[in-house]
Amino acid sequence: MERGRVEAFSDGVIAVAITLLALNLVVPGPGHGPLLSQLADRWPSFLAYLLSFFTIGIVWVNHHTLMRLIGRISRTLLFLNLVLLLFVVLMPFATGTAAEYLTRGGGDASGAMAMFAGTLLGMAIGFTLIFEWALRHGAISYPSAAARRRARLRFTAGTIAYVAAIGISFVNALAAFLLLFAVAVYYIFEHAPTPQREHAE
Amino acid sequence: MERGRVEAFSDGVIAVAITLLALNLVVPGPGHGPLLSQLADRWPSFLAYLLSFFTIGIVWVNHHTLMRLIGRISRTLLFLNLVLLLFVVLMPFATGTAAEYLTRGGGDASGAMAMFAGTLLGMAIGFTLIFEWALRHGAISYPSAAARRRARLRFTAGTIAYVAAIGISFVNALAAFLLLFAVAVYYIFEHAPTPQREHAE
Amino acid sequence: MERGRVEAFSDGVIAVAITLLALNLVVPGPGHGPLLSQLADRWPSFLAYLLSFFTIGIVWVNHHTLMRLIGRISRTLLFLNLVLLLFVVLMPFATGTAAEYLTRGGGDASGAMAMFAGTLLGMAIGFTLIFEWALRHGAISYPSAAARRRARLRFTAGTIAYVAAIGISFVNALAAFLLLFAVAVYYIFEHAPTPQREHAE
Amino acid sequence: MERGRVEAFSDGVIAVAITLLALNLVVPGPGHGPLLSQLADRWPSFLAYLLSFFTIGIVWVNHHTLMRLIGRISRTLLFLNLVLLLFVVLMPFATGTAAEYLTRGGGDASGAMAMFAGTLLGMAIGFTLIFEWALRHGAISYPSAAARRRARLRFTAGTIAYVAAIGISFVNALAAFLLLFAVAVYYIFEHAPTPQREHAE
Repeated sequence: MERGRVEAFSDGVIAVAITLLALNLVVPGPGHGPLLSQLADRWPSFLAYLLSFFTIGIVWVNHHTLMRLIGRISRTLLFLNLVLLLFVVLMPFATGTAAEYLTRGGGDASGAMAMFAGTLLGMAIGFTLIFEWALRHGAISYPSAAARRRARLRFTAGTIAYVAAIGISFVNALAAFLLLFAVAVYYIFEHAPTPQREHAE
Repeated sequence: MERGRVEAFSDGVIAVAITLLALNLVVPGPGHGPLLSQLADRWPSFLAYLLSFFTIGIVWVNHHTLMRLIGRISRTLLFLNLVLLLFVVLMPFATGTAAEYLTRGGGDASGAMAMFAGTLLGMAIGFTLIFEWALRHGAISYPSAAARRRARLRFTAGTIAYVAAIGISFVNALAAFLLLFAVAVYYIFEHAPTPQREHAE
Repeated sequence: MERGRVEAFSDGVIAVAITLLALNLVVPGPGHGPLLSQLADRWPSFLAYLLSFFTIGIVWVNHHTLMRLIGRISRTLLFLNLVLLLFVVLMPFATGTAAEYLTRGGGDASGAMAMFAGTLLGMAIGFTLIFEWALRHGAISYPSAAARRRARLRFTAGTIAYVAAIGISFVNALAAFLLLFAVAVYYIFEHAPTPQREHAE
Repeated sequence: MERGRVEAFSDGVIAVAITLLALNLVVPGPGHGPLLSQLADRWPSFLAYLLSFFTIGIVWVNHHTLMRLIGRISRTLLFLNLVLLLFVVLMPFATGTAAEYLTRGGGDASGAMAMFAGTLLGMAIGFTLIFEWALRHGAISYPSAAARRRARLRFTAGTIAYVAAIGISFVNALAAFLLLFAVAVYYIFEHAPTPQREHAE
């Protein structure tokens, strides 16, 4: 039951954060040129919405998977979970800022994209903290050492990709954006192809 | 239990999106003429709120019905569900833009209405994806072939109506708006009259 | 289980609406005179927040009580529930507008207050619809005819008070505001004093 | 089950309020100087977000702990719970105002910080009301008198700290801010170190 409430609260925060992403979708409105060109001018907002929506969606799916593996929720885990949610809640702000500066170029585009990738990194670190703490305190158990290694590898992979994206932001903000898209697509399709793995999960 | 969390998360997103619809209801405030005429000027916002509220409400009811039929939730279904929610979250933006441009006429009114109908179409497609995937993978089962055919017909009917509304938008935005209203009313009253059907459901 | 999801969704909508009330609490910020006088100028916003918060809170408590009495949820009840939620979602807008115009006097203050009372009336009507439909279709059952009569009386009392408040708005907006406060206080304390009644409930 | 719905609603309100905190994170955007200096100028917003996020997080954890101890939920408890939530919902406004005025100095910085500390005090009082009412009506039971005393001490400690912070606000707003940070850190780490206490809880 205790786990149920952690999940319910986390689901609530994630649901609100994912929905608030759409507040970044605004057009100046009548009197600012044709609607189509207003929408076209704001293509980074729509792409960033798509990316952040699915990234938060993946966080939700992974949170779900991770929580099911954890048998006992302690106070420490509640606070590590809050660290994860702290970055989830930052997503609408980070997404909006990254979208607004993406096409401006220069140091600001780099900075905004690095801040966005940093928010994703924050979520990945939040996950890693929950995962490692649960492993160390026996609150999580894997059917095999191979399964555990694979799970840890997945968390590490995301973390490395986000660190790389921060670095790439300072070379080319758009390239970092595309990398983050690729990571999201990878996580979405990672488990889909083989039904066996789906059953095993 | 797994299904419970998908429902809880979807309910959360739908609940937030339906409530954010009201953020489009704003009046300029004191100093902009009599309140009554401010409200009257914004009749499209209120009508669009009504339409979108009940359309999202129908989505929630249908989501509920569909999920109850699905026995086993897989990772793929979680992501198809996210596709549906992606469009639900767009509803406040699409509703606000459609309402703002409805009475402006010309290409912008058409474009805004087409974008709104397109968002509804996106939700319908999301449902169809979930439904067809679940059927194909045996995750959903109907008491009879007739029941399955009827269910599929209902999804298809909505999809066709929304495609039609997009087309009609470019002829007359208001006519498309009325069609979308008619579709919502149809879905609300479809099941209400005969108690037998209600029991059968 | 079906009832559980109706409650979860309604709770979600009510929780978001009650929290969005606070978006009406804004001060102009630095450069607009002392903070204290900015806050003092906006006393109607704070009072209206207090009133609307507890009014929605009462709606939540009553919704909870009513749903527990209803054994079987039908599609029609789902839509009657949506009618109730339609007005709950309007609350932040109606509250904000009423607060903004309360001290302006004249027809606008009356109109804004009437719109606010009308939103409360809409919630009361939503409740009555759910209640009467459930009674008529045997979905709700009371331990005694007296209990049923008392329940109906309570719904009717609220409805009459809100209709009265609309009328009074056009004489004196502030008086209508005070009446709505009195109604909220009445509903809060109605059940509190005698522990026996609490147990009976 | 009744308790389940109180928790679900409270979780919903807390989840929305904690997520709305991020709406205070805005930068003026392109054309207002380098992004980095815009972000740097708004350091109080980010610190205040961090503080309020974890403070609300602690409220959620404590709410969870307290509710689990309460066996029977009465109507009075529902309304005392609403008093707590009334202040939770004020958090985004209080946080935003405190952050905006923190670096302005003078009476406004003091007033804004006192209002912020007052909101925290409101939450602490809400908790105390729930706790004392539940104790007095036998709805809560502790394994030992020592456990009860310790629980009461914890609530009292928070209340005193918040009253102190209000007083300190008028001497030095930043010092009050730091005290509130210290309180949050104290509550987070209070239970973490010794696993035995975690099991005992």
